[in-house]
Amino acid sequence: MTTSNSSTHTIGLLVANKPGVLFRIAGLFSRRGWNIESLAVGPTERPEYSRVTVVVQLSKPIEQMLRQVQKLLPVVKAVELQPRKLVERELMLVKIATPEASHMELSALLEVYNARIVDVSMGSMMIEATGSNERLDALEIQLKKFRIQELCRTGRIALESGSQTIISAEE
Amino acid sequence: MTTSNSSTHTIGLLVANKPGVLFRIAGLFSRRGWNIESLAVGPTERPEYSRVTVVVQLSKPIEQMLRQVQKLLPVVKAVELQPRKLVERELMLVKIATPEASHMELSALLEVYNARIVDVSMGSMMIEATGSNERLDALEIQLKKFRIQELCRTGRIALESGSQTIISAEE
Repeated sequence: MTTSNSSTHTIGLLVANKPGVLFRIAGLFSRRGWNIESLAVGPTERPEYSRVTVVVQLSKPIEQMLRQVQKLLPVVKAVELQPRKLVERELMLVKIATPEASHMELSALLEVYNARIVDVSMGSMMIEATGSNERLDALEIQLKKFRIQELCRTGRIALESGSQTIISAEE
Repeated sequence: MTTSNSSTHTIGLLVANKPGVLFRIAGLFSRRGWNIESLAVGPTERPEYSRVTVVVQLSKPIEQMLRQVQKLLPVVKAVELQPRKLVERELMLVKIATPEASHMELSALLEVYNARIVDVSMGSMMIEATGSNERLDALEIQLKKFRIQELCRTGRIALESGSQTIISAEE
């Protein structure tokens, strides 16, 4: 998508799994003034490669940005993931205060959001939830009733739906 | 924990949510030769802060490293999360080839790993799973039977169990 106004793009990068890779990528984004909204780095099906998912706000054509990213040495492949086909997910861990009176309400909420309790202690619980950015934002707002003590979210990862692979570490 | 041999540490950072923050953090790690095993950046309960979870291999005392990280301007707080108390999670999206004959076996596997099917197309499926690093590694090995077409994982996030908060964006 080429737009003249600032718009959000999800970029998938396949990179060599070497020290300093993240530094070089973050450096390019910083120098160019591309605003990173979210970033996730994780292993792929092959240990020599990592996959980086970046959500970025751009005011320039995406093609130009992809060309510059592609030129970075550790980057093997850089593609934009098409928003209409995207299955996007992120993960949230959140610790909330849970007075006994709130258990029923909390339980209903967790069912709606398909969230799980992963740790319980006196007066507090830790909850794990996955979903799109918007879904987790909505759950977070709901959980504020119970007082959020601590919260941690991964960046977004995404794959395109359908059987086609966009960036695969397979040959 | 102070050890003389190389060991793995999970570090939680609370940082100001400003452009270039990731670049400065990645730069420090790169200059010092600290090997990043995993990194996840995500929002906290307060929009002006992000929380970064870094899993790092260190041969030097962790206290020294935390002091240096803490000196970086955008870093508000840097702490080591105690391994024995840690609830660690990461998220995986994986697209696999699924011939019809494999449906029963796949279904049993997904139940064991508490994984969900999030997209289905002709001959392939997309699966979402969360868990510890080890758990997702084990699932990944099991899924290789079905031929993995594409795979994407977030970095690890972690909170300590119990009602104490270690790095909270709350006052």
